[in-house]
Amino acid sequence: MTTTPRRARGRQGLVLVFTGEGKGKTTAALGTLLRAWGRGMQVLVIQFLKAETGQWGEVKAARRLGWEWYKMGDGFTWRAQDEDDSAARARAGWQLAQDKIASGRYDLVLLDEFTYPLHFGWLATEQVVAWLQAHKPPATHVLITGRYAPPALQAYADLVTEMRNIKHPFDAGMRAQPGIEF
Amino acid sequence: MTTTPRRARGRQGLVLVFTGEGKGKTTAALGTLLRAWGRGMQVLVIQFLKAETGQWGEVKAARRLGWEWYKMGDGFTWRAQDEDDSAARARAGWQLAQDKIASGRYDLVLLDEFTYPLHFGWLATEQVVAWLQAHKPPATHVLITGRYAPPALQAYADLVTEMRNIKHPFDAGMRAQPGIEF
Repeated sequence: MTTTPRRARGRQGLVLVFTGEGKGKTTAALGTLLRAWGRGMQVLVIQFLKAETGQWGEVKAARRLGWEWYKMGDGFTWRAQDEDDSAARARAGWQLAQDKIASGRYDLVLLDEFTYPLHFGWLATEQVVAWLQAHKPPATHVLITGRYAPPALQAYADLVTEMRNIKHPFDAGMRAQPGIEF
Repeated sequence: MTTTPRRARGRQGLVLVFTGEGKGKTTAALGTLLRAWGRGMQVLVIQFLKAETGQWGEVKAARRLGWEWYKMGDGFTWRAQDEDDSAARARAGWQLAQDKIASGRYDLVLLDEFTYPLHFGWLATEQVVAWLQAHKPPATHVLITGRYAPPALQAYADLVTEMRNIKHPFDAGMRAQPGIEF
C-alpha cells in the first residue's frame, strides 16, 4: 500500500496568484471562476482597484450568472493626495474579504487587484498572509491578481503565474476593443 | 479636425495569442470569452488538443451558457505513431475553423491549443496566417492558445501574452484540484 502526501487527500483549497505586467491576469481569474462555476462551485469576487467603467463585460457577465461581486475601489487611485482614502477603502475591502472567506460559504474567492494595497503598503502583507494561514477554511480557494505581488505573498501561495506582454495592440496605436479588453 | 488611425475606427477584430509554458492560457481565454459573452457577443470554441476528461469545468460551464463548443482532438497526442491521425484531425479542425470564421456569425472565435498543430507541422503556419489575412471578417476576433506559438503567428497577431510559471502546486506534489485546474 502506498501513502499519499497529506495535502493531496481530498480537496485542498489553493492560494493562487496571477501577477506580472502583462494582460490577462483578471481575465485568467474570470476563466478560473467560470470553470469553478461550471462545476457548481460558489464563487465570489471582491475588486480592489478598477473603476466600474473599465470592466463592463465582466460585470455584465457576472450579473447574468448571478455571481456575488463587490467593488471596493470605485475610482480610487494611488496618487499621493488620495492615499488616506485609498488606504481606508483597501482596509474596508480586506475586512469584507475576511468575513466572506471565514464564512466558509464560498469555494473560490477572487481578490482582484489585491496586490496593489499590499504593494503600496495600505495593508501589511505579513498580516494578510498570517490571517489567511490562520483563518482560511482548508477547502476554500483564494485567487489574488495584480502586478507587483509581494515576495511574502508569492512565498505563501501554492501557485504563482506571471503574465508577460510580448506584444500589445496599444503599442500599435490601436484602441481598446469592447468585450475583449474590458 | 484630427484624424484617427484607420484601424482605430469602429470595431477592429483582433488576433490574440496566449502562449508560454505557464498555466492560465486556456483559462485566460475562457475569461475573455466570458467578458465578450457578457456584452452579448457571439462566441465559439474549437479545441484542438485536450481530451474531454481534462476540462470538465469549462465544458459544463459552456453547456450552461449555451456556447458552441467543438472538440477536434479527443485523445489525440503528438506521439509518432499517431501522427497521421493527429494531422488529419488538425486539418479537419482547421477546416471547421475556417468555415466558422468566414461565416461572420461569430464575434470571438477561440482556437484552443491551436499552436500545437502549427508547431508540429501538421498545418503550415504561413498558410494559416495567409488565410486569416485574406478571409477573417474585419470585425471578428480570433484568439489562439497554446505553447510554442510559431514566430510567424506571433508576428501576425495583434496581441501576444506569455504565461510563465513562477510556482506551481504540482511542484510541491499537490494533486490537481477540480474546478480550479480543470
